[in-house]
Amino acid sequence: MKIAVLGGDGYCGWATALYLSKQGHEISIIDNFVRRQWDHELGAQTLTPIRPLSDRLRVWHQLTGYNISSYIGDVTDYEFLVGMIQDFEPEAIIHFAEQRSAPYSMIDQRHAVFTQVNNVVGTLNLLFAVREHAPQCHLIKLGTMGEYGTPNIDIEEGYITIEHNGRKDVMPYPKQPGSFYHLSKVHDSHNIMFACKVWGLSATDLNQGVVYGTVTDEVEMDEALINRFDYDEIFGTVLNRFCVEAAIGHPLTVYGKGGQQRGFLDIRDTVRCVEIACNHPAKAGEFRVFNQFTERFSILDIANHVQAAGKKIGLDVEITHLPDPRVEAEEHYYNAKHSKLIDLGLQPHYLSENLLDSLLKIAVRYQDRIDSSLIMPRVNWRKSRNEKPQQGAVRAAVAGNGKNGGNGHHAAPLAPVASAKTPRAK
Amino acid sequence: MKIAVLGGDGYCGWATALYLSKQGHEISIIDNFVRRQWDHELGAQTLTPIRPLSDRLRVWHQLTGYNISSYIGDVTDYEFLVGMIQDFEPEAIIHFAEQRSAPYSMIDQRHAVFTQVNNVVGTLNLLFAVREHAPQCHLIKLGTMGEYGTPNIDIEEGYITIEHNGRKDVMPYPKQPGSFYHLSKVHDSHNIMFACKVWGLSATDLNQGVVYGTVTDEVEMDEALINRFDYDEIFGTVLNRFCVEAAIGHPLTVYGKGGQQRGFLDIRDTVRCVEIACNHPAKAGEFRVFNQFTERFSILDIANHVQAAGKKIGLDVEITHLPDPRVEAEEHYYNAKHSKLIDLGLQPHYLSENLLDSLLKIAVRYQDRIDSSLIMPRVNWRKSRNEKPQQGAVRAAVAGNGKNGGNGHHAAPLAPVASAKTPRAK
Repeated sequence: MKIAVLGGDGYCGWATALYLSKQGHEISIIDNFVRRQWDHELGAQTLTPIRPLSDRLRVWHQLTGYNISSYIGDVTDYEFLVGMIQDFEPEAIIHFAEQRSAPYSMIDQRHAVFTQVNNVVGTLNLLFAVREHAPQCHLIKLGTMGEYGTPNIDIEEGYITIEHNGRKDVMPYPKQPGSFYHLSKVHDSHNIMFACKVWGLSATDLNQGVVYGTVTDEVEMDEALINRFDYDEIFGTVLNRFCVEAAIGHPLTVYGKGGQQRGFLDIRDTVRCVEIACNHPAKAGEFRVFNQFTERFSILDIANHVQAAGKKIGLDVEITHLPDPRVEAEEHYYNAKHSKLIDLGLQPHYLSENLLDSLLKIAVRYQDRIDSSLIMPRVNWRKSRNEKPQQGAVRAAVAGNGKNGGNGHHAAPLAPVASAKTPRAK
Repeated sequence: MKIAVLGGDGYCGWATALYLSKQGHEISIIDNFVRRQWDHELGAQTLTPIRPLSDRLRVWHQLTGYNISSYIGDVTDYEFLVGMIQDFEPEAIIHFAEQRSAPYSMIDQRHAVFTQVNNVVGTLNLLFAVREHAPQCHLIKLGTMGEYGTPNIDIEEGYITIEHNGRKDVMPYPKQPGSFYHLSKVHDSHNIMFACKVWGLSATDLNQGVVYGTVTDEVEMDEALINRFDYDEIFGTVLNRFCVEAAIGHPLTVYGKGGQQRGFLDIRDTVRCVEIACNHPAKAGEFRVFNQFTERFSILDIANHVQAAGKKIGLDVEITHLPDPRVEAEEHYYNAKHSKLIDLGLQPHYLSENLLDSLLKIAVRYQDRIDSSLIMPRVNWRKSRNEKPQQGAVRAAVAGNGKNGGNGHHAAPLAPVASAKTPRAK
């Protein structure tokens, strides 16, 4: 199958592209490397030393004989996106190409607006491009379990049957997202559902839980294929971050009580879930939602697991509770369904001592690359203007420029039309 | 009270600004006149000859002694918006400043993206600006009943209590909007709800029905104060459009069977509902939702009313059924609650023979300004690329330019970052 992987240079995208290539699919990666740029903006880097995409693809071809093509550009550029679809003619498109960090979206107004415009416009463009140039193409979109929030009732997979005043209907499950990033994913879901309805597109929304791990069979083949491993407060997912903290003797940073429960999955299951979606496409006109996670843990559970695994390899791991920088329930009911992917054949890799041991060892191996100043949370949900790690430099740049300068984005997130600040008929 | 009316040069905004000024409030209008520009883009104009804002405000002051100030700029320009709030220091902000036409948003990719970016970014900016510079200010946001769609159960005002698997929670009412425009309003609602939660802002979302009428006590005072009366397929709301059709002997254009039921209200009730919201602000941290309409009609009901009213003044009015250009249920259950504004004192102006008679007479009076070529629907929901009335001219302009030219927007809706269309490692 010809499969386009949008955002294929990123964490989940890279693992997915290699895995699907290994299964014999014809893969193309679409990326603009903005994820690498955000690292520069934040003064952060992945724990693992990742290579440039061109290198990665060259080595993959040398090792396996498989060829992965690439289109370098931005999905918010409609002409670029259409050009790719006309040229590559994908049968499935996997859309990872979004700004995926909740804290990044909560830094300030510019980052919130950038996140929503980037994500919503990219997905809107994709819907139009598929409608106009590849209407049979199956769209597989990465959503997040965070779209649902933490309601006091069971979370279903996308839809819920509601009985109300003696009548009944199947409705989209109500969403209560917890950051401007999570909101952007909710906006996407609504837009995609509508496009399926009016244009007959087929789409699968994968509401993914928190991903952990970095090793898949493919990236393990060679140092040049190594995947990202983010541990900073902005892009580091919780289990990976805890392993890095354990490796350098930093207390595990549990936000609040740690009773926040979330769905989790191993990155080896991410790639398999996407494959399952590819092999079982949604019907024409169908907007299908899968909850993509395998286990539920509280944040404190995760910390306890890392502490125990650390002890076994001689690490003395402390757990600390910080004031929660997010606005979220620190203890709550949580029961989210996740049977649809299992029904289609997913065999989960549950969180194991082996996995924790391997992750900790990776963290120890690369510990000289760890900048511990990136770990403590600076972005506070209750504030609308937060300091970034490199804020000092940014402030200087903004002072010298004004409009588009200093933010680290290589394009202004939006194009304000002409305006005058002076009141007129006052 | 100091009240900022965003979009105060538009249809609902103008009527509201004058009405609140008359009640003794200190009003400022914020507008960038893009609504007037869309008329030029579409080759359309309001039936009634509206004056420039500066003229309108001058005459209002001469007639009443009341002074309405203005800030000319775009709410998607954050610096402009912050400047206005710091200078005017509003106690309430009424946000009408959005692209409000469903067909406009369905013309093509550019119009869909423009609508969502314009509306979502404007509202996001407003949330940040209020949080940073006027956290006590009450935000009154115009939403639409179209956010709900037409579910098979009763529509509540914003929230619904759901019992599911033996547990219960109050959840946001699930949304099923029917155009990229309506989707933008749903995105706004989610963003506002979140901002109220994390920052303690107070906001009222007015989910307004289809507005009809053009005359309020204030605009009737002088020809210079006359309000818009749109009848074209893009911006004309249904009752106003039917009256124009009746006036010139054009059959009333019912889409499909006409069994589509919607909530309606007189523009005299729009201004009163907004006043009620101002006088009874939401609490800090509260995201309050009112369904703002007074009566439910099917489209065919409306056509029959106009036909009957036409007969009385000697007009021979036919009704025609066109294939529905929208994707919507042509017959469906519809029972939407709308008691909260009534409970706070709204006394509705129900649709009357007098009102229909007055509207028809306005249509007859200005019939020499009617361009009947603007009435038939060209924008088809099932297509992703529709012709605009002025498409010929647009096509020529696009051919000669490319990127930002020819669309009629005075700024590109988004700023694509650098991209290359050539595949790289292929």
